[in-house]
Amino acid sequence: MTRLVFWYEFASTYSYLSAMRIEALAGREGLEVVWRPFLLGPIFRDQGWESSPFNEIAAKGTYMWRDMERLAEGHGLPPLVRPDPFPQHSLLAARIATIGTEEGWAPAFTRAVYQAEFAEGLQISDPAVLAGLLKGIGQDASVVERAKTDQAMKDLLRTRTEEAIALGLFGAPSFVTEDGELFWGDDRLEQAMAWAQKG
Amino acid sequence: MTRLVFWYEFASTYSYLSAMRIEALAGREGLEVVWRPFLLGPIFRDQGWESSPFNEIAAKGTYMWRDMERLAEGHGLPPLVRPDPFPQHSLLAARIATIGTEEGWAPAFTRAVYQAEFAEGLQISDPAVLAGLLKGIGQDASVVERAKTDQAMKDLLRTRTEEAIALGLFGAPSFVTEDGELFWGDDRLEQAMAWAQKG
Repeated sequence: MTRLVFWYEFASTYSYLSAMRIEALAGREGLEVVWRPFLLGPIFRDQGWESSPFNEIAAKGTYMWRDMERLAEGHGLPPLVRPDPFPQHSLLAARIATIGTEEGWAPAFTRAVYQAEFAEGLQISDPAVLAGLLKGIGQDASVVERAKTDQAMKDLLRTRTEEAIALGLFGAPSFVTEDGELFWGDDRLEQAMAWAQKG
Repeated sequence: MTRLVFWYEFASTYSYLSAMRIEALAGREGLEVVWRPFLLGPIFRDQGWESSPFNEIAAKGTYMWRDMERLAEGHGLPPLVRPDPFPQHSLLAARIATIGTEEGWAPAFTRAVYQAEFAEGLQISDPAVLAGLLKGIGQDASVVERAKTDQAMKDLLRTRTEEAIALGLFGAPSFVTEDGELFWGDDRLEQAMAWAQKG
């Protein structure tokens, strides 16, 4: 089956939109989604940002939240909750999700994290919150502790983030087709899928 | 007729896409487009950019040009030409277009400038190029000289740029509905029109 790689960051608002709709779209299009959690922090720091661009440029942040409210409503998602603090610290969730990519439960865990973050306002940096989300998808809460110590999984997340940079990624969500085309932003998801199918 | 205000900057790549398609879409939707050339330079400088973000963040620039190539092709536009230098110096073109907004020929002039810039690779800062574009739409080439000296029109462009900032604009193209909703980016044009109609 033709694959589309979905690169996402748990702190990223627009990644939330894609995570909640990508499987339904891919199913209709006959595509396989490869879920790739990665870290935007190192990339943004290389770009000279100390925090999210949405915090550093006030008008851009104000607009993004309004845009997200409209889009969440349009996609039939719950009313958008603005995480506090924003951005949330996403490292532990990304490490857990990386384990999930090796064990097959990354999609369910990812959706649970985004739901907690942007619909319920929970702290996704909190190990207890993450343990609850794991239990909610039928996984063992001990994965949280494993994510803190499993060096191979830490290295895998780091390697994938370096791979993202090598692919030209500079934001999230991003989508990469088998022939190497890069698409950035939830609003490019349909275009990425059309490209993947034609390839 | 319900109005949608179209804010654009001549140096902006994605504004080109909107300028070439907005009238056809608005005609189908029964909307009136208000054309508003403004200057992004002062806004970007306030955000801490010395040049275009597409120049300052290399990966973002590489992506933007590829994205623009794909979108121009998808919209049936000529193969995209990358202006050199990029961004083009847009002040004189914006002053001329501001006169055009008062005299009714801003849409035709705007499309001619974008076509010259992104399909033909002409220097849109060159008064001779702008004079030729004016003649091409049936206007007098002397408008170029007028644009350099007409203080009322210079002030109008400055006032509108300040208005753009007050409306929360931070990039181009942007669209503002009669009830004050702001939409940013060519990929939000259809959504902005749907909002305008429902308002």
